[in-house]
Amino acid sequence: MSNIPWQDKPKNSNDVMWRYSENPIIDRYAIPSSNSIFNSAVVPFGDGFAGVFRCDNKAVQMNIFAGFSSNGIDWEINHEPIVMQAGNTDMIDSDYKYDPRVVFIEDRYWITWCNGYHGPTIGIGYTFDFKEFFQCENAFLPFNRNGVLFPQKINGKYAMLSRPSDNGHTPFGDIYISYSPDMKYWGEHRCVMKAAPFEDSAWQCTKIGAGPIPILTDEGWLMLYHGVITTCNGFRYAMGAAILDENQPDRVKYRTQPYLLGPAVSYEQNGDVPNVVFPCAALHDIKEDKLVVYYGAADTVVAMAFGKLSEVIEFTKNNSL
Amino acid sequence: MSNIPWQDKPKNSNDVMWRYSENPIIDRYAIPSSNSIFNSAVVPFGDGFAGVFRCDNKAVQMNIFAGFSSNGIDWEINHEPIVMQAGNTDMIDSDYKYDPRVVFIEDRYWITWCNGYHGPTIGIGYTFDFKEFFQCENAFLPFNRNGVLFPQKINGKYAMLSRPSDNGHTPFGDIYISYSPDMKYWGEHRCVMKAAPFEDSAWQCTKIGAGPIPILTDEGWLMLYHGVITTCNGFRYAMGAAILDENQPDRVKYRTQPYLLGPAVSYEQNGDVPNVVFPCAALHDIKEDKLVVYYGAADTVVAMAFGKLSEVIEFTKNNSL
Amino acid sequence: MSNIPWQDKPKNSNDVMWRYSENPIIDRYAIPSSNSIFNSAVVPFGDGFAGVFRCDNKAVQMNIFAGFSSNGIDWEINHEPIVMQAGNTDMIDSDYKYDPRVVFIEDRYWITWCNGYHGPTIGIGYTFDFKEFFQCENAFLPFNRNGVLFPQKINGKYAMLSRPSDNGHTPFGDIYISYSPDMKYWGEHRCVMKAAPFEDSAWQCTKIGAGPIPILTDEGWLMLYHGVITTCNGFRYAMGAAILDENQPDRVKYRTQPYLLGPAVSYEQNGDVPNVVFPCAALHDIKEDKLVVYYGAADTVVAMAFGKLSEVIEFTKNNSL
Amino acid sequence: MSNIPWQDKPKNSNDVMWRYSENPIIDRYAIPSSNSIFNSAVVPFGDGFAGVFRCDNKAVQMNIFAGFSSNGIDWEINHEPIVMQAGNTDMIDSDYKYDPRVVFIEDRYWITWCNGYHGPTIGIGYTFDFKEFFQCENAFLPFNRNGVLFPQKINGKYAMLSRPSDNGHTPFGDIYISYSPDMKYWGEHRCVMKAAPFEDSAWQCTKIGAGPIPILTDEGWLMLYHGVITTCNGFRYAMGAAILDENQPDRVKYRTQPYLLGPAVSYEQNGDVPNVVFPCAALHDIKEDKLVVYYGAADTVVAMAFGKLSEVIEFTKNNSL
Amino acid sequence: MSNIPWQDKPKNSNDVMWRYSENPIIDRYAIPSSNSIFNSAVVPFGDGFAGVFRCDNKAVQMNIFAGFSSNGIDWEINHEPIVMQAGNTDMIDSDYKYDPRVVFIEDRYWITWCNGYHGPTIGIGYTFDFKEFFQCENAFLPFNRNGVLFPQKINGKYAMLSRPSDNGHTPFGDIYISYSPDMKYWGEHRCVMKAAPFEDSAWQCTKIGAGPIPILTDEGWLMLYHGVITTCNGFRYAMGAAILDENQPDRVKYRTQPYLLGPAVSYEQNGDVPNVVFPCAALHDIKEDKLVVYYGAADTVVAMAFGKLSEVIEFTKNNSL
Amino acid sequence: MSNIPWQDKPKNSNDVMWRYSENPIIDRYAIPSSNSIFNSAVVPFGDGFAGVFRCDNKAVQMNIFAGFSSNGIDWEINHEPIVMQAGNTDMIDSDYKYDPRVVFIEDRYWITWCNGYHGPTIGIGYTFDFKEFFQCENAFLPFNRNGVLFPQKINGKYAMLSRPSDNGHTPFGDIYISYSPDMKYWGEHRCVMKAAPFEDSAWQCTKIGAGPIPILTDEGWLMLYHGVITTCNGFRYAMGAAILDENQPDRVKYRTQPYLLGPAVSYEQNGDVPNVVFPCAALHDIKEDKLVVYYGAADTVVAMAFGKLSEVIEFTKNNSL
Repeated sequence: MSNIPWQDKPKNSNDVMWRYSENPIIDRYAIPSSNSIFNSAVVPFGDGFAGVFRCDNKAVQMNIFAGFSSNGIDWEINHEPIVMQAGNTDMIDSDYKYDPRVVFIEDRYWITWCNGYHGPTIGIGYTFDFKEFFQCENAFLPFNRNGVLFPQKINGKYAMLSRPSDNGHTPFGDIYISYSPDMKYWGEHRCVMKAAPFEDSAWQCTKIGAGPIPILTDEGWLMLYHGVITTCNGFRYAMGAAILDENQPDRVKYRTQPYLLGPAVSYEQNGDVPNVVFPCAALHDIKEDKLVVYYGAADTVVAMAFGKLSEVIEFTKNNSL
Repeated sequence: MSNIPWQDKPKNSNDVMWRYSENPIIDRYAIPSSNSIFNSAVVPFGDGFAGVFRCDNKAVQMNIFAGFSSNGIDWEINHEPIVMQAGNTDMIDSDYKYDPRVVFIEDRYWITWCNGYHGPTIGIGYTFDFKEFFQCENAFLPFNRNGVLFPQKINGKYAMLSRPSDNGHTPFGDIYISYSPDMKYWGEHRCVMKAAPFEDSAWQCTKIGAGPIPILTDEGWLMLYHGVITTCNGFRYAMGAAILDENQPDRVKYRTQPYLLGPAVSYEQNGDVPNVVFPCAALHDIKEDKLVVYYGAADTVVAMAFGKLSEVIEFTKNNSL
Repeated sequence: MSNIPWQDKPKNSNDVMWRYSENPIIDRYAIPSSNSIFNSAVVPFGDGFAGVFRCDNKAVQMNIFAGFSSNGIDWEINHEPIVMQAGNTDMIDSDYKYDPRVVFIEDRYWITWCNGYHGPTIGIGYTFDFKEFFQCENAFLPFNRNGVLFPQKINGKYAMLSRPSDNGHTPFGDIYISYSPDMKYWGEHRCVMKAAPFEDSAWQCTKIGAGPIPILTDEGWLMLYHGVITTCNGFRYAMGAAILDENQPDRVKYRTQPYLLGPAVSYEQNGDVPNVVFPCAALHDIKEDKLVVYYGAADTVVAMAFGKLSEVIEFTKNNSL
Repeated sequence: MSNIPWQDKPKNSNDVMWRYSENPIIDRYAIPSSNSIFNSAVVPFGDGFAGVFRCDNKAVQMNIFAGFSSNGIDWEINHEPIVMQAGNTDMIDSDYKYDPRVVFIEDRYWITWCNGYHGPTIGIGYTFDFKEFFQCENAFLPFNRNGVLFPQKINGKYAMLSRPSDNGHTPFGDIYISYSPDMKYWGEHRCVMKAAPFEDSAWQCTKIGAGPIPILTDEGWLMLYHGVITTCNGFRYAMGAAILDENQPDRVKYRTQPYLLGPAVSYEQNGDVPNVVFPCAALHDIKEDKLVVYYGAADTVVAMAFGKLSEVIEFTKNNSL
Repeated sequence: MSNIPWQDKPKNSNDVMWRYSENPIIDRYAIPSSNSIFNSAVVPFGDGFAGVFRCDNKAVQMNIFAGFSSNGIDWEINHEPIVMQAGNTDMIDSDYKYDPRVVFIEDRYWITWCNGYHGPTIGIGYTFDFKEFFQCENAFLPFNRNGVLFPQKINGKYAMLSRPSDNGHTPFGDIYISYSPDMKYWGEHRCVMKAAPFEDSAWQCTKIGAGPIPILTDEGWLMLYHGVITTCNGFRYAMGAAILDENQPDRVKYRTQPYLLGPAVSYEQNGDVPNVVFPCAALHDIKEDKLVVYYGAADTVVAMAFGKLSEVIEFTKNNSL
Repeated sequence: MSNIPWQDKPKNSNDVMWRYSENPIIDRYAIPSSNSIFNSAVVPFGDGFAGVFRCDNKAVQMNIFAGFSSNGIDWEINHEPIVMQAGNTDMIDSDYKYDPRVVFIEDRYWITWCNGYHGPTIGIGYTFDFKEFFQCENAFLPFNRNGVLFPQKINGKYAMLSRPSDNGHTPFGDIYISYSPDMKYWGEHRCVMKAAPFEDSAWQCTKIGAGPIPILTDEGWLMLYHGVITTCNGFRYAMGAAILDENQPDRVKYRTQPYLLGPAVSYEQNGDVPNVVFPCAALHDIKEDKLVVYYGAADTVVAMAFGKLSEVIEFTKNNSL
């Protein structure tokens, strides 16, 4: 991956991950209809990059839009939301779509998102070209959020992380894994990782959810995730990392006790939902040892953070809960 | 079915369903360890009947027990809970088991129940003889309750009703259907029926959940279910009926606006949870036009109610919401 | 009033008010469609009595029904709910009707009830004969309950007690008075009486609401009312009495610190809502010094209680909060 | 109206309404006692403008103050709150006053506000000169907020919009209309407009309330209003518009699905209550096609926004829910 | 103790503790002012027994009353509440008194109760004769309930169990121990025992609190206690037992996983708070191997249960959580 | 005290207390492990100052750290948390430590903090040199916060203010005082001051808690404290002052109706908990008439405010609730 976007660590910084100096990279009003653009996903595509973006319009209806970029930083987002055709089902209605993830598996780009079907559940779709999109059966019954596919089959099956929820601003949430032979029927559900005890790691004591597509490393699957604490003024979202066993990804090998990135600058502290850092996508280059995370900030804009892949892994191993 | 338990409708009664005069048929202390026995399932077995019973012990731990009866009324319940062997999975741990349903499909008796796996979800097991029991993969991610199998495959797949929930005394709940090719992976989730508007049918306005195994009739699947209203002193559970399309059971053809049976006698009004009528099993004889419903009363004991199958269907059609 | 229903105080009883020995006088299933009959109103009519009854049907839809009695104890209730014609308004829709009160003023019987118009508010109607009924404008904006008219104009205006509420099982509630020149426009709202401090009179510390039509006595208006305490198992409703100034009825002269009647017998403790005594109507005969209260018990049935009018007044004066 | 304050739309802006570049126009500490000044009302008066301002003092007691301006932008606010004399009632006590609206009808300036009388309800007063003020009967029983008068009688009666509430941070709220022959007794209450379904227009899905005095246009009454969404970090208030039928203003002809102005700049995102845009007053000039909205920002300061009246109307018609 | 009240175990019963056949022994109306008499304490006194009784009057004000009995079953309770004189403090006001315990230590009878001082906390008093009573300093800051003294000093200090609470129907609660050199200043607070995990012993998973005065046995201190489960219809209180280390009573040696007595008969299931068994006192005779527990039933009446001391201890050891 | 940090009041300011122009004085990342540093305590020590600082690490674990400064403004905080040795107890475990206060009494520096022992309670420790620290018995049972010692014995006993709480984001809270002969056993608990009525002083209507060590003045004890209002977006914390009787400090002589300092600048409005001003320490110089308050801002950083001691006292007397 020759063109991964990058900015070196600031001098004097000891942080494992650092923000892009020109954040946010996508403004809330970047397309005419939008109230906010955040919690979005990007992948390498052709010579550049493609993405699926959560754009809430000014009616605050949630939908997903395709976008393209040559450098991963400057994005052109379509002004119209993605229109779905029937994939492995005819039932492709959805009341809303939000928080997409994108991953290339085998021959196509799979998209998962929070799909409104009598409440939030996990929608699945695919595209070959980011022009035509096909919607499949929802993976699960409601209520669920943060469905994240692994980038390859595990033991011959598709694997998906998710976070069972309720029908509101869920005050709990753990990460589970489920398997499917065919992207239509899902089973073998296992609990992967639960919210942490308050005394041990309060930033992730209310709920946790998988973020970008997991990255296969020598240590196992690097899973970036969000953790939430309930303050007396609401939820605060920060980002951590875990390493899951390569072949049995319901086994957590390491998990950061400290967060990697928490809301601390203006565009993370001010917006429609203050104090939110919510990662949904990552680019990485193993050879160059680079990791780029795309995250929603304050439920309003898209921002980027950088890290050395090896340092993130080391930090996760050395600061494990 | 020559030996269906029965008691004629009381003179002067106009009710569509009526209670057994010797209710409750199973007392809360019917086995030495029990605090309460309720929300249990029975099926014809051999010359008589077998059942799977929810017995909460005096530590108020919830578990399921096998039991046997020659007449469907007088029951011998084992003093030890069912021990599970591995079915289609090795993961057969459960924190608790409650509210079982039992159905014979093809060659064996399938059991579903609310299974404690990091919260309530739907456990699946089977037995050939009510002596050896085999536990399969949970059908769904938590949180779910009231998983009820159809007694035959529909369009070549197993079909299960369930009620997605949250992790407490869930204040909402609708009935969904899901399909599986193999009792291991589940998908094609569809919403079947939602709680009713308060103004239209308040007894079922908080939540609803499937009860006994659906019964195939000329009109479609007769599904008895419980509905809940939230009074200022808590939940009140009553029983209604719906008729689902035979081949597309997510289509509701009829659904009772009035309840069929609501808590009104002492053993339904007094107990560990007052004002609960909770049906979990039914026997029927099409030829004799008989329907027998087994229901938990006040979360404490097991009771029976009778009805003419044809009258229940007529009532459902004529009083549809 | 020659025919007031009556039963003498039981020997050895020191209670100010006592229950009718044959309670409940109206069973939950007294008409074919009913799930429960309670919180209802009666008045002298012709040679006997007429009433407006809250009958929730078996869909638990709430509506009001006319009924008649020769002795005030044995009632014939119509099997169909009251149908309203336009009174002083064309807007006579209502989602539900419950908890009626009835009073004769000048030339007709006025009925008030909790009327469902985008939430509960106070409906007003009238009849001359309990056959034809006319619905008027709602008195107030939602949310309100327990609207109770005074039996005569005060200072030339109609006067109504009510209890502003919210849109659920309201956990607060005080009694207000409002005035109207014409039964259409209402104003001059005044707070009459608030829920009592827990330490002083806990049975009425959550909320209070007016019950029967106030009775003019030498001491002022005798207002029977319900008071509610929140126990760890929900609300408990009991009955008390207050005496309001004749000409300035927002002035409370006396108010019982103890309750007059609290739920203590089976039909008050068991039913759809346990532990409810809810008075909605009273008959009285000044000369015979008799007071008869009709109250809903456990939100399920109608019961009666008796008292000597003079003793009730003395008790209220001598045990005032 | 020759002197309406104005600032042209910024180049490159496509917004229907735009902020004043010198916002906020009134600082939180603009008078010595104030903690915050917001949610306030202005009208043309003499050669300039007068207003009634909500100033919470540093004890966070809420009260209303008169103020004056020659240009509608620079304001002198009295240092002492308005003192009320008896209008059509002697009962002019109030525990607090907030969120005033002002309108000239016939011969005087009418003021409505949220008045503390055993909870929030709608207070009414008037002045001829913004020096002497007269308080009338409260329009309604508690609990109510956002009482807004129409600027002329409708069908011969005064008309007022309001939002029935509960006694706290009400999590629901719809707009109603009521009528009065005399500003003392109110009735003929009708529901005008309800909070929107989440899927259709989430910014207004928790509650809505009328803002400035409605403006009569060729299309009907232009009603600017606030809508609220509940995020996981609390309420977010934005502004929309609706057009009501001229003669039957409970009929909504159009209503913006998108918001017109949502919190997006620092003084709207930071303050005592973050993320609040709360319009309470507007000036307009039909001939010049100008609309100026005064709104409270973050419950802390007063700000202005501008729009072309015709564009606001077109936008409302073309983007109707 | 020659006169301990007693009734043998019913034939065919396998229960460790059994109810008195004439329960309840004290009716809710046993004194003229009472609404309910429950959660009360008794001790041997003179030739018979004395007690301190919680009598809520008909205003539902909570207070404690002295009473006397020759046989421990038939009680004469004073008609006036206990009047306190100054003990080791002048601050003897209390808003309410409830749930007393009584114990003889050294030279006097100590009484503890839930004392209303800006919320519930633990009041302390003493008497020599059950005629004159002296009130001491409250043991703790609010909020606390169920303060229970040990019957002798431990390591030279007074020791008291208690359950820190909040200011309402507390949904949590564990048992702590505190020590005092002088019954005035308290410290060395230790957690003794917490509510049990739902999966292990649900009847005591919401909260627990000490009941009667602990009884010194060969195994250690036998502490009877109440445990609470939250059903969808509220709290359910049952009784269990624990054995604490004699010298280090914050060490729990055994604790019953099953309850010893749970609400199952009418006077426990019906009353002001249904489904409550709440032990507050016990008599025992080591030689005769008898244990008598006095418990409040349904927050309405006083009942008794019996057990063989040795069997209770064996059961606790053999069924320990 | 020759070296009290100081900055004169800004020209044109009429505020009684004013912020330091270089605020915040301690950044959230001032030590390598920290996520935030706030709610901390300082005292004169040697030639300069010492302090105990609440540093939440990036796992959001709460602990206290020693720090030193020569001028009271520039601080060196240890990178490792304080390690406790046994003081008057062996039970020195704690799950977390936060919100410390420090005071010199007689011969040593006493530290109190919120100590995690099965929930929050008041921990006590001491040091002579800020190198070695000794932990004593917790003062109270859980749940408690904001324990603040008086700087000298009162009537021969140690005296401590505290705020009884519950186990979450407590929505209530009043200030109490307790006494101890020995820093081990505590009693004589008295309510000092309660949250104010909403109508009188809403900024302190939800809860209040003592802040810095009280300062003895000619008028009595000057107690700075925080008060909290519940807005629709959460809690808002501001600072007020009270004057307590010198010898009977449960008697409040004066108490500010307005706040002295409320959140109004960026570092108070933005951070992990927006809108928090939380004073924990003060330096003062009677002769120079100087008062310096250290306060946590937005639960993220430490800031300073200045005032003339005499003006603060005058203001408190002249603006008393």
